[in-house]
Amino acid sequence: MAIAECLQELKKTGKVDQDKPTLKRYSKDHSYHHPMEPLCVFTCQNENDIQTCLRICNKYKVPVIPTAGKTSLEGHTIPESSNVVIIDTSEMDKIVAINEKDLDCIVQPGVNWMELGERLEKLGLFFPPDPGASAMIGGMCGTNCSGTHAWRVVLADGTVVKTRRRPNKSSAGYDLTRLFVGSEGTLGIVSEATLRLRRLPRFHAVIFSQFKTLQDAANTVAQVVQEGILLNRMELLDDFSMKAINLANKSSYGELNSLLFECAGFSEVQIRDQLEALEKITSGHHCVLFEKESGAQSAKLWNIRKAAYFASKALRPEIDSHILTTDCAVPISHLCEMLTATRIDLSNSGLVASIVAHAGDGNFHVFLQVDITNEKEVQAAEAFRLRNATLALKFDGTCTGEHGIGIGKRELLVEEVGHETVELMRRIKKQLDPNAILNPGKVFELYPKAKL
Amino acid sequence: MAIAECLQELKKTGKVDQDKPTLKRYSKDHSYHHPMEPLCVFTCQNENDIQTCLRICNKYKVPVIPTAGKTSLEGHTIPESSNVVIIDTSEMDKIVAINEKDLDCIVQPGVNWMELGERLEKLGLFFPPDPGASAMIGGMCGTNCSGTHAWRVVLADGTVVKTRRRPNKSSAGYDLTRLFVGSEGTLGIVSEATLRLRRLPRFHAVIFSQFKTLQDAANTVAQVVQEGILLNRMELLDDFSMKAINLANKSSYGELNSLLFECAGFSEVQIRDQLEALEKITSGHHCVLFEKESGAQSAKLWNIRKAAYFASKALRPEIDSHILTTDCAVPISHLCEMLTATRIDLSNSGLVASIVAHAGDGNFHVFLQVDITNEKEVQAAEAFRLRNATLALKFDGTCTGEHGIGIGKRELLVEEVGHETVELMRRIKKQLDPNAILNPGKVFELYPKAKL
Repeated sequence: MAIAECLQELKKTGKVDQDKPTLKRYSKDHSYHHPMEPLCVFTCQNENDIQTCLRICNKYKVPVIPTAGKTSLEGHTIPESSNVVIIDTSEMDKIVAINEKDLDCIVQPGVNWMELGERLEKLGLFFPPDPGASAMIGGMCGTNCSGTHAWRVVLADGTVVKTRRRPNKSSAGYDLTRLFVGSEGTLGIVSEATLRLRRLPRFHAVIFSQFKTLQDAANTVAQVVQEGILLNRMELLDDFSMKAINLANKSSYGELNSLLFECAGFSEVQIRDQLEALEKITSGHHCVLFEKESGAQSAKLWNIRKAAYFASKALRPEIDSHILTTDCAVPISHLCEMLTATRIDLSNSGLVASIVAHAGDGNFHVFLQVDITNEKEVQAAEAFRLRNATLALKFDGTCTGEHGIGIGKRELLVEEVGHETVELMRRIKKQLDPNAILNPGKVFELYPKAKL
Repeated sequence: MAIAECLQELKKTGKVDQDKPTLKRYSKDHSYHHPMEPLCVFTCQNENDIQTCLRICNKYKVPVIPTAGKTSLEGHTIPESSNVVIIDTSEMDKIVAINEKDLDCIVQPGVNWMELGERLEKLGLFFPPDPGASAMIGGMCGTNCSGTHAWRVVLADGTVVKTRRRPNKSSAGYDLTRLFVGSEGTLGIVSEATLRLRRLPRFHAVIFSQFKTLQDAANTVAQVVQEGILLNRMELLDDFSMKAINLANKSSYGELNSLLFECAGFSEVQIRDQLEALEKITSGHHCVLFEKESGAQSAKLWNIRKAAYFASKALRPEIDSHILTTDCAVPISHLCEMLTATRIDLSNSGLVASIVAHAGDGNFHVFLQVDITNEKEVQAAEAFRLRNATLALKFDGTCTGEHGIGIGKRELLVEEVGHETVELMRRIKKQLDPNAILNPGKVFELYPKAKL
């Protein structure tokens, strides 16, 4: 049997683990999708190991799933069947080089971004993206995280391709870098990535502002974007988020739609300038609170945003809810309408949730509080997600701003970009992975079932 | 004969031109590559026309080359044989939509970027890239111009794919947008593109600075980049550039290595802040001139940079030289070394040239002044280009920062990213364009000749 022979050959490498606790640990991620234990876990220490594993699995046509931090929110690393080999790159955790003068670094897929951040901070640098705390670079590449550039990629047959060199810009051939980044492990496994860094600004300030209505907050966002004010971050927390934070942390913020702005710059003058501009804009939109902190104190205010995700569980104190997260994005001009419709839908469905948004990008997350043991509730949540994503598409948006397609949004992908475009993705996939071993079933089905 | 039948079927559409002057006009671009007249020119008014032409040519396996502005610097739109149909999209010049609130617009490939700029300016917006004056959006997409996003693409068989919707960010499936952008017309023809715009800053200033040595100028660039100072543009002009400008315009600037900085912002405070920072940095690197102009006067100084390209011809007043342009880019940390070696090589080769650089990107252009009728000179220039690009690769750079691979850098592409990577590009190409009709021979050869 091909599976048995494959396993036997893999085991000869001494890198295979089939212990029950291991298989259980790798059977799930941070999504709600059903866990499925893999056949085994193959742990890689270096690129050669990835090549070895792929060559063997490709020979026997046994599917593989690459994983690093196991923090996927869309089921990316959950096997669809039990005859799947997990390729674990989390031990490939070297920071290969930090090129300070060029503002880039070269890292392996198992590098944790927060640990990278600590190392970079000592050099006065930082890597801008802000995913979940345990996220690793491999997964960040896989879900199109900005600033991540594929560098060395191992293809299904074990070939290594280097997609680019290290200049700041290049027009040399096809942008394979961007093809692999965001391919959710279905086209190749990144064995080394370059990351674009930035100089850590010396001056910071955070503003916490609150508004009478969601419309006011959204209009503020729109004006900030349209006036071209360059902020580090701009986050929206809806009134339910503030309620949740108060419940969880025993704070007493107004339960209002709120905006958090993070200003950063290389001079105090820059910060003052941004603060003044924001004060002016917010005051034109029924701002009822404008609290600002500078320097080291600014983290105190930003913690409000950091608290939002886990605090959302406090909205349903009676159960240990699972947080089911959505990830739509719409053009800024539609953000207010979208968020308003979202809140109405939640209310009508009786679903409990808070909403946060990366406001400047029009990307928002609904943190649904779901009793995962209650099938009806799970279905209601799923139905909401589908309605919400469908509405985002009507606004010319996307069903996934950041987290990727994974398992649960394959049909939405077809609706978003059309059959022809998904068929094109299939053709590319079949060319790069003829035996379809790389994370099968994710992003799209290779052989979609005919609809009856 | 397939060609004759193809031509006959194309002619039935009434969109074919075979007049001699037309064929001659479409036989060349702005590069030095040998002109070649096409079979005919098929003019498109809309996406349907592109589809019609492609379906016919694909049926008969007749090669096509898409063109818009005809301003390629690398031979992209020059046929390699005479049995090629030029698909002209320059009459598809509609600005389909300007979404002011979302800072994007949707345009057809024949839109001229300068004309677009004028329209956007009235709305207080602008599209940042700065290519040649006659460049059109279609070609800018094809050569990976930043901010251009493929939107609707016609494939070789006439299928239209829509690669994305209109949110600010998306992780929905493979980044086909970036696959087509920069594919130099070899994977599909963009029939509509979205462009990311920016708010036009209300305040401007330009600084013209000069330095004792190239090292001083390059060190200044490095420090500006590393300190994270956000400028609109930062351009380096070498001493030969300044000499050429003086000759051409009868000005009397010092013939020194120079930097032009363009500051832009939404408050006078921002500008003042940038000016102070730049004054401080430049003074630490033997700056001998620091001239600044604000507001409307700033254009006067920026004209120095605008003059550089055509002024370079003044370095060889005795002939009507052809300007042969290089386009390498290296990591910033290697820029000084690269430019120094470049100047030495030019001197040793007896070639006449000036150098400008998009300094913050490490991307520079050598404007070689070549007597195109003198075969030895052309060969010497070509040999220099090859040496210079090879050196850029040694510095982990690229042989093309902006202009693309076209005809003349196909072997350099292999050297830059490796055989396996180019083979991967071939596989993708063969999948999307099985009859190899789309701009054959550009970027890479589909069937490379075995080296003897």
